[in-house]
Amino acid sequence: MIVQQILSMKPQTGTVTIAPSATLNEAVEILSAHRIGAVVVSVDGRTVAGILSERDVVRELGKYGTSCLTKKVDQVMTSKIVSCGRSETALDVLQTMTDGRFRHMPVIEGGQMIGLISIGDVVKARLAELAAEKDALEGMIKGY
Amino acid sequence: MIVQQILSMKPQTGTVTIAPSATLNEAVEILSAHRIGAVVVSVDGRTVAGILSERDVVRELGKYGTSCLTKKVDQVMTSKIVSCGRSETALDVLQTMTDGRFRHMPVIEGGQMIGLISIGDVVKARLAELAAEKDALEGMIKGY
Repeated sequence: MIVQQILSMKPQTGTVTIAPSATLNEAVEILSAHRIGAVVVSVDGRTVAGILSERDVVRELGKYGTSCLTKKVDQVMTSKIVSCGRSETALDVLQTMTDGRFRHMPVIEGGQMIGLISIGDVVKARLAELAAEKDALEGMIKGY
Repeated sequence: MIVQQILSMKPQTGTVTIAPSATLNEAVEILSAHRIGAVVVSVDGRTVAGILSERDVVRELGKYGTSCLTKKVDQVMTSKIVSCGRSETALDVLQTMTDGRFRHMPVIEGGQMIGLISIGDVVKARLAELAAEKDALEGMIKGY
């Protein structure tokens, strides 16, 4: 299984982005309204400046209290982003996420973001693949 | 791979819990200080009343603003908890998490919580198992 297959199993609604100059308050509203765990920070919607996750918000709140919510997104986001390409394997992506202790990875091609995948997306796609393999093997045994 | 193996690969530091009567503010401090994505809500540290995750906190903030932080944990937590047992397979746990769209599951035995596993824990354990299988197969080929 490769990243392209994982992307194609996601709803094709486009990746949600937020401007680096937006406030943490605005980021919270976006995360909550879209029911997503992380939002890509981008000036133009195509290049990735960083990622801001639920985790980043809760860490800031725990450290600095509610005053942190007026901070700009680019003061809090993770800017050292590890990304992947379309043809990378699901296994490599999971290993990278596990080693780096993060749950979201932008998919980049030619410097442009073509999607965002989460650990949940990868697991879901892999489970679907295993179920299909199982069906195929059972079909062979039954002689269909 | 079964749940017991996943538990045994985690640091044996005990599961972090919070009282149902604590405030969301206190929960944020605990999530942030322990660098965890969810905290088990429990009166006695052994039985599970619910789970409160980073996601729950961000959703509340997005909907109600900072005034939500004085709410009690039991007003916000997920109380319909899906748990698993020690002998359940990693595959079943991942499928349940994927279907239910959650990332943490308490492990229960005899009505008592013996641990908490996250989707990250399951993936990490499975990757370690795959690496060990690979080493063993390579060993066989090389005739060691």
